[in-house]
Parts: sequence; structure tokens; C-alpha cells
Amino acid sequence: MPSEKTGTKLKHIVLTSHPARFGQKPLPIHWGAVDPLKRGPVIGTLTTAAHRNVIGTHAGSYGVYRALAVASGKLQSNHRADLTNTLPAEPIGPHPSWYSADKIVSLDPLGALVGEVYAPLYQEGYDIRPTIAITKAHINMPELQEAVMKGRIQVDGKILKPGGDLVVTKAAIEPVWYLPGIANRLGVTESDLRHALFEQTGGMFPELVTRPDFHVFLPPIGGMTVYIVGEVAAITDPQRPLAVRVHDECNGSDVFGSDICTCRPYLVHGIEACVQTAQAGGAGVIVYLRKEGRALGEVTKFLVYNARKRQEGGDRADAYFTRTECVAGVQDMRFQELMPDVLHWLGITRIDRFISMSNMKYNAITQSGIEIVERVPIPEDLIPADARVEIEAKKAAGYYTNGSVPDDADLAQIKGRMLTE
Amino acid sequence: MPSEKTGTKLKHIVLTSHPARFGQKPLPIHWGAVDPLKRGPVIGTLTTAAHRNVIGTHAGSYGVYRALAVASGKLQSNHRADLTNTLPAEPIGPHPSWYSADKIVSLDPLGALVGEVYAPLYQEGYDIRPTIAITKAHINMPELQEAVMKGRIQVDGKILKPGGDLVVTKAAIEPVWYLPGIANRLGVTESDLRHALFEQTGGMFPELVTRPDFHVFLPPIGGMTVYIVGEVAAITDPQRPLAVRVHDECNGSDVFGSDICTCRPYLVHGIEACVQTAQAGGAGVIVYLRKEGRALGEVTKFLVYNARKRQEGGDRADAYFTRTECVAGVQDMRFQELMPDVLHWLGITRIDRFISMSNMKYNAITQSGIEIVERVPIPEDLIPADARVEIEAKKAAGYYTNGSVPDDADLAQIKGRMLTE
Repeated sequence: MPSEKTGTKLKHIVLTSHPARFGQKPLPIHWGAVDPLKRGPVIGTLTTAAHRNVIGTHAGSYGVYRALAVASGKLQSNHRADLTNTLPAEPIGPHPSWYSADKIVSLDPLGALVGEVYAPLYQEGYDIRPTIAITKAHINMPELQEAVMKGRIQVDGKILKPGGDLVVTKAAIEPVWYLPGIANRLGVTESDLRHALFEQTGGMFPELVTRPDFHVFLPPIGGMTVYIVGEVAAITDPQRPLAVRVHDECNGSDVFGSDICTCRPYLVHGIEACVQTAQAGGAGVIVYLRKEGRALGEVTKFLVYNARKRQEGGDRADAYFTRTECVAGVQDMRFQELMPDVLHWLGITRIDRFISMSNMKYNAITQSGIEIVERVPIPEDLIPADARVEIEAKKAAGYYTNGSVPDDADLAQIKGRMLTE
Repeated sequence: MPSEKTGTKLKHIVLTSHPARFGQKPLPIHWGAVDPLKRGPVIGTLTTAAHRNVIGTHAGSYGVYRALAVASGKLQSNHRADLTNTLPAEPIGPHPSWYSADKIVSLDPLGALVGEVYAPLYQEGYDIRPTIAITKAHINMPELQEAVMKGRIQVDGKILKPGGDLVVTKAAIEPVWYLPGIANRLGVTESDLRHALFEQTGGMFPELVTRPDFHVFLPPIGGMTVYIVGEVAAITDPQRPLAVRVHDECNGSDVFGSDICTCRPYLVHGIEACVQTAQAGGAGVIVYLRKEGRALGEVTKFLVYNARKRQEGGDRADAYFTRTECVAGVQDMRFQELMPDVLHWLGITRIDRFISMSNMKYNAITQSGIEIVERVPIPEDLIPADARVEIEAKKAAGYYTNGSVPDDADLAQIKGRMLTE
């Protein structure tokens, strides 16, 4: 085992920085400003500490792996990305919604364009990293092939190719939080938000409290991915229809097809709606957000599964939310208030077909100023038997349905499988 | 917008803690000790700060959402989980590998058992959270139904049910890092590791440098999920066969079926092998690790896709790794050195069928003392056309194949689709 030297370097470490009183200041960020150079770039690089104008670093939680790479000598800490040929495969924006300090607060609308709009700053030595990347892909899901076979969608050779390949534009987005805007959405002061973020994570990033001059935070959490079917230009064209699903990660269903929830079936149904809408001359958008288990994480989710399936009377719809609250203290931590940001980044002002029954998502989107014309519930035949507990409990709690809303007596009758089955 | 009070509470904030010189100390952790009470519980709770004996908090990166919930008043900061009925649905361990400070360093082997082994401490008021949860599920993937139809696997009514439902035991695991052990794996001193983790994340957790007495860190990163097919007891029975795939997250393929890589097809092939091995009286294990884009994150991944598909000569196998290095500075940040921990947690000492071609995974596992009998490459017919660039580049770089290894001239001929196609 290597020799232990903990503490010997303490004298070289600055434990937290404070606003500069003299000398050069980092480039300021004026969130929402129209001119990108006046808005200012988000600089979370570790190559030149004096240039940093945010709290935290890039790549969301993967910044921790970067630190391991530097620690082990695999990565030079001063490595700068060679961004040759990495510019967006399709342009997205700018849109009027970008020029507001309120409409978009949890991602950087300029995140994909830094290589263009900050070109002069690169030459001055600033290390500005994209926080959004836009590429193209062909995707193929077995269920889509089945949808073709059953005639629900047709191969057109351009959007949907023979064999079921679906042509998409996709964007990966890292979280970039403008703290005054986040605080405003949550209805708290920026100061209270900063203190909670510091204290309630066990002391992560003292700069949250020592750098009130830095208003942008790159939190070490998962980001999101946007899948666009059809022409990007159709998204913002009022003459063309738009289908949207905003989907929160559920690894157990999305990848492995667990039958305790409707996540993957509803996701696939959303993609089908995107294909239909794009083929009708519009576009479809799927947003995939890394908020596993309602942002409670998968350990909590599995603990809740056990509690549900072992409780007296078995897994019952009438006790569905209670079990989550007992373990986690809340039913949900997803903060859908932040979710519409990505729709505003895309320039969306109207959704013709919203492929979600969530009242929380619906309320967040419409309250952010986007019109929703039609809400599309999951077809009954796509609901796995064991997922009845969840879907009926959600309907009773306010989820959209075009059928009947179960009452307490109904809920008490709806039961899922036991752990032993 | 709420009024701004940044700074006014600074006097109440302890920016970083230091080891106690007087007064009560938190419960010590003796990593690898046989007696759980001597080993000591991992306490990352925020309810009673004086009880904390680790750096960071629970739920990996979802701890940030918990802080939002407290900030917004949705969650009481002193909420304690009601863990009634949450105990593991199947017992796993203890195994001899648990009683070593070296075999397992990136997760807490006792993580699922805290409700049992620390029962006396709960009564004393300690808030000890499980970092592992074990439940049961039925999963159903369309490809498995196809495998049944084509006769590659059979419905047996117990492991694989009619309709393609597969019965699994699954475990969600949060990261728990024993820093001396992590440092040892990476070949650096604990001090250098701690400084890099602090400095190269932009100043995350000053306790990494101010609390050399705390050797356990709960990093804000994704964890992993284990899927077990067949009897858990078969995993450690030397008379019964075992199939294993360790799979690193690839959302674009695993969920959406992107054709640029082999991730989902190989994952499904691994599950098929697990079913076959379980039906032959053994067991199968899939480990799903949240290390998107080789732990570089999805933004970097998409930037690299663009650079590959736009470079001179198009997307070529002979330039496959170079493009990643140009953007990220390294080819890979997954640190497979840490991956075998989960296999040791399961008590695995021999893998009969290893469903992976990765030489990095193979080397990490065998060097950790686990025997691998057979390596199973992905069948040729499961490789999407556009994924040829990746798989052939990897073979040339040392990936296992039972076919021929491409040379430089071969690699220069293997090309993928352009962005415009």
C-alpha cells in the first residue's frame, strides 16, 4: 500500500475561494443577455482556476471520474479538449425564450454553440466547454418493428427506414443551474437555496456560501437527452404539429422491462406518436431525464418495492404513495418546475400531443407558458398487470385519464404480486 | 423574485469540519472487520451531524435533489426513513471476501444488512441508511420473446414464464468508497487521491482534506444494479455453472437502440446466457454500472460521434480511439479496477461464461482473484452495421475475439455512416 501522507499538503490547499477584492476578475455572466459575449461563457474548467466563473465543474457527476483520472496520472490536469468537428449536427436556436433570466434556469441555452459564439475567447486562452452536444443517430427498438408489422406506423424510407431504423437528431445536455432562477422556481431565496445545497449534501462546495458573486452552479447530477423525430424546424413552426413526451429515467423498466410500472411501454408509445406526428409533417420530441426513482435513487426505489409487496394486505393501490413517503419522507423529488427549461431551449410554445398523464408535468409546462392541446394516456393494453397498482393510484391522485377515476374502494381492490410470487 | 440575503447567514455556517480534539467522536469504521459492530456502520445522515463518520451523503448524486427538497420545505431535514418491511427479498452474503480491507473498496458489503446487524444502534438513535437494496422482479424484453420463438431459450415456467417474463432477484447499490483502498487500486497515495478529488472537482467536499480521520467517502455519482437469474445460492456453489456480464451504461443503445454500438444487443445476449445457465442448474448475473460514455458522460460521447463522422475520410476504425482522446484527453475513464468489487460482494470466485470481450474487464476481474473459464464474444449477427467501426477497433486494441484480429490495413477499410446519411 502506498505511504500515507494525508495532511502534508494542507498548506498548499485553498479550501474555498472568496470574491476577489483586487486584481483580475473572471468574465461575468449576465444570464439571459441577448449578446453571447455580454451573456458571458460558462467556464468550469480546472485548467486555469482564475478563469472559473461558476461553482463546480463540467460533465455532471462524471467530474468525479475526471478527478480519478487526474489522480492516477492518466489525464493531464491541463488537458484542453480539441473540439474540431464537434459542432452541432443540426442547429437548435437561438429562440426568443433564450433571452430571459427566468425561462431557462437549469441548462445553458448557449451550451451547444460555445465553439461558435465564443470563438474570440478561445484565442485568448479561455477553456470553454460545451455543455450541450447535438448529433444524429439511427435508433431501432423491437417494439417499433412490431408497430410497423401491426400497421400502427409505416416505413416511409426517410424518417422510418425499412427494418425499423428511425432517424433522429439527439442532444445531450449537462445541468447548468442559474441559482437565482432555481431559487425563484422553488419559491425560496437564493441564500436559503445555497445554504441548503451546501449543508444538506454534507458540505459540498463551500463556494455556494463563500462566492455570492458566482450565480451559476454545475451540480454533480445526471443531465438529460433530447430525441427529435422529423425536421428540427417543425418544432417551432405553428403550422406543423408537435408531439412531446418528457420521460424520467426508470432503468428497471426502460432497459430491463420490469413489469411493476409502465415506463418503457409509455416511452415506446411516445416514440410511436413522434413518428406519426413527424410523418404528418410535424415533429416529435422525447426528453429523457436522469431522475431515477423520482430522483430518490434506485436504492430507495427498491426499498419501497419491498415495503409495498410485504405490507399487510399486500401491494395495494391505496397505499402506493404512503410507502414511498415512509421511506423517503416525500412522494417525489423530481422538481418538475425545472423540467420545462429544455422545452423552452427547443423554442416550443405549443404541444399538440402530450404523451404523459402526469399532472405535475402538465402543470409545470402550462404554467411556464407552453400550450398543451391534447393529453394522450397510455393505451390500456400496454399496462403490465403488476403496474395496475401504480397507474390507478396515480389516476386517483390527479393523473390525467380519459376513463374513470378510481375511488378509495376501487383502490383498495387493486393489488400487485407478492415478493414470493 | 424573493429578496436576496446571500451572506447574511455566513456566521452560522461551518465551512468544513476538522477532527474532534475533545468531546464525543463519531463511531469509527474499521473497514473489513468481521464483526459488523466492530466494522462500524456507514453514517452519512444529515439528521444528526455529530453522528456522521463519512464524507458526503447518501443516494449518490441524488443527494443534491434531497437538498432541493429540504430547501423548498418539502422534506424535513430531520426525516428518518421508516424501514419497515424493506429488508432484502433474498439474502446475499456474508462471504469471506467481505472480511478484507482490499477485496471490496467501492461499495459497503454490509449495505443491505444494516437493518439487521445494526439493530441495537437504531435504538440508540443512530440514523443508519441502507446503501444496498435487494428486491425481486419480473422483467420482459422483446428480444427474449424472440429468443424463445427461435428456440434459443425455453420457457420452463419457473425462471422463464410463458409470455417471456423472466424472474430475477435484483440489487441496487450506491457507491461507498473506502479511500485507502481506492487509492491502493489506482496506485496512488490516499493523500494524493483526496487532494485530486477535492481540487479536480472544483472544490467539492473540503473534508476530503480536512478530515483525514474519515476514510469513507460517499461520492455523488451513479451506482449500479445487479440482476440475478436463477438461485442466488448457485452463484457461490462450485458445482454449479455461472454466467456473468458486467455492462457499462449506454443510454443511447440500452434504451433507444442506437446502431452505432453493440451495447444493447450484447446485454440481451448476456441475459440469454444467464437464462441458459440458470436453466442448466446454475445462475446468471448481469451488473449494470452507471458509467455512461466510458464515464466521460454523454455530452463528450456525442461530441466524439460528431468528430468521428466528420473527420477526413469519414468514420474510420483506425481513428476510433483517437477521436475520443482528442476531446476527452483519455480513451476511457471507467476505472475497471473498481468493478470487481460487486462480484466479490456476491461471493463469486469463478465465472464459467464471461459475456464480454473487454480485455480491461477481463484483466481487472482475473487480477482480483476470480477465475474466468470461457469468454463469450457477441455473435456476428447481433452487430449493427454502423457498430463495425467500434467493434473492430476494439478487437485491434486487445478485445477478445475467437475470430481474426484486424490489422491496420483492415481498420482503414472499415467505415461507418456519415452524419448526413
